[in-house]
Amino acid sequence: MTLNPPSASARAAAEERLAGLATPAGALGRLGELGVWLAAVQGQCPPAPPAHVRAVIFAGDHGVAGHGVSAYPSAVTPAMVRTFLIGRAGVSALAAAHGVHVRVLDLAVDDDLEGVDAEQLAAVQRFKVRRGSEPIHLVDALTADEVEQALEAGATVAREEIAAGADLLISGDMGIGNTTPAAALIAAILGVPAADVTGRGTGIDDEALLHKQEIIQQAVDRAEKSTSARTPTGLLAALGGADLAASAGFMAEAARQGVPVLLDGVISVACGLVADQLEPGAAAWFAAGHRSTEPAQRFALEKLGLEPMLDLGMRLGEGSGAVAAVPVVRSAISVLRDVALLADLMPDA
Amino acid sequence: MTLNPPSASARAAAEERLAGLATPAGALGRLGELGVWLAAVQGQCPPAPPAHVRAVIFAGDHGVAGHGVSAYPSAVTPAMVRTFLIGRAGVSALAAAHGVHVRVLDLAVDDDLEGVDAEQLAAVQRFKVRRGSEPIHLVDALTADEVEQALEAGATVAREEIAAGADLLISGDMGIGNTTPAAALIAAILGVPAADVTGRGTGIDDEALLHKQEIIQQAVDRAEKSTSARTPTGLLAALGGADLAASAGFMAEAARQGVPVLLDGVISVACGLVADQLEPGAAAWFAAGHRSTEPAQRFALEKLGLEPMLDLGMRLGEGSGAVAAVPVVRSAISVLRDVALLADLMPDA
Repeated sequence: MTLNPPSASARAAAEERLAGLATPAGALGRLGELGVWLAAVQGQCPPAPPAHVRAVIFAGDHGVAGHGVSAYPSAVTPAMVRTFLIGRAGVSALAAAHGVHVRVLDLAVDDDLEGVDAEQLAAVQRFKVRRGSEPIHLVDALTADEVEQALEAGATVAREEIAAGADLLISGDMGIGNTTPAAALIAAILGVPAADVTGRGTGIDDEALLHKQEIIQQAVDRAEKSTSARTPTGLLAALGGADLAASAGFMAEAARQGVPVLLDGVISVACGLVADQLEPGAAAWFAAGHRSTEPAQRFALEKLGLEPMLDLGMRLGEGSGAVAAVPVVRSAISVLRDVALLADLMPDA
Repeated sequence: MTLNPPSASARAAAEERLAGLATPAGALGRLGELGVWLAAVQGQCPPAPPAHVRAVIFAGDHGVAGHGVSAYPSAVTPAMVRTFLIGRAGVSALAAAHGVHVRVLDLAVDDDLEGVDAEQLAAVQRFKVRRGSEPIHLVDALTADEVEQALEAGATVAREEIAAGADLLISGDMGIGNTTPAAALIAAILGVPAADVTGRGTGIDDEALLHKQEIIQQAVDRAEKSTSARTPTGLLAALGGADLAASAGFMAEAARQGVPVLLDGVISVACGLVADQLEPGAAAWFAAGHRSTEPAQRFALEKLGLEPMLDLGMRLGEGSGAVAAVPVVRSAISVLRDVALLADLMPDA
């Protein structure tokens, strides 16, 4: 399936409508630009409010988490999966407030989620690739086959969500240690030194930050020496993880299907960057929900040409920043759709 | 009536709850801080989602608009009042999207709004002080009596909105030329030169910007020489306008009544600054909705100790930025209220 760009004619019609609104030129700021993008991805002007916003959280553990890069142990990952399932996580609260559907999938959690209701467990583990991805500073995170399996899982999930009515998708993530592969992928793809992309994740101290930076540089250097890590799928194998590969596959498929995606924090944006490498042009279907405190996110957003809607100092992951940005999408649509045209107010002008 | 501060005990309970949530410390960023403020102003922890958010737009013309400080003529003010009445302005669209009630009042529009339905007209003009405020670089905008009348009008409207159920208030503004008195008030109160506070408003060019700066400096210099302009009410008379005075009275009364206010752009924040001078401590009841492109806003926000929730490059006025920020308030409440406590997930930890 080839990738179509968003509608140029709907974009042109939206730009004309925006210029004709009974507001001073440019007074709507980013809301105006966002409304034009929404018209283009929906292929209609004015755009309609999204009826079904659906978020998928791809959960997975990372071998590197056992090497001092995170403030929390990997045992938190399954605990958070359970919290999503009872609807009590940060993203659950935000999603309930803003009418967003949330689905959580275990791609590579290093746990069997014992005690979870059998039917729910089967749904959550349906696309499970493995228990934990390998430590990326030492060996490849995944085999080539596992990458394919995860990419296909993400694409299948995107098709399922779209079949369920999704007209705006969000890809969230959960996995202790996951800012390390995300930063490594961004560093490797954009040729940025580890020192520039390494952040504190859930809150490590200065000493651990330096150690994390070394681990990321080691991982990137290791991948650079590998001939197989010169393609997007090769990079996902070397530096990613099953959860990240599934998220990249999910976003690439959303773009192929012509459904817009709201990006979240650094993991989501790293996966968006990979998706745009897998399917050049995919980024035209993406908008950035919020600015993360992780430094790597900025490099990837610049490469993708995206500017976040919110900057609230959030660093929770889970898709929470993208869900918090959904009302900004609704704001953008409401002004482009419902504000009077100057020509209607003053037909003779 | 004396001004009470927001509840210290609800604030302390909210800080404790925030620290106990099943999220990494600080991961909610500004949403966490905002949730704590909402608990304090509601006097309860966790805070409840606002049930009735009500915005009031104070409309008025400014004599200074006839002196080359605006990209638009004063005739636009009554045209926009009509647009609010038919629910087709920017703020109308945003308010409909986010469940906010909007009321528009003509405090000093230089027009009789002929043709508006008689009942609607009576409601809109119920607090009308005069047709247009005087050009502030030449003479005082208002008499002392007119300031009192406008302040009392704003206070009455605040009480009416609260009686109608408002648990979160927004003060918007409409009036060609109004960034000039707003910037002049901020410059005079904070002792900032006109060059630092003068912005492009609805979009003036470089030449007009320099002229506007001179007009603002002239107004501030004129007020400085007047002994009567050394009180907040004296400043409103010298440099304000009936719409701005009413907005300041509205916000001061909201604070007295213990109802929180979401500030909008530069006019709203200038009026909030005056309200905090009229009622020291009132700013504890205010939060900043969005960052305006007008430079004066930053100085006033710094003085009030407020940081905007949104930064979308908006410069529409009308309360639109504050209305667009209402979902951020809902986000902040949802996380503090609905996210699991670590102690509930792991009772034995």
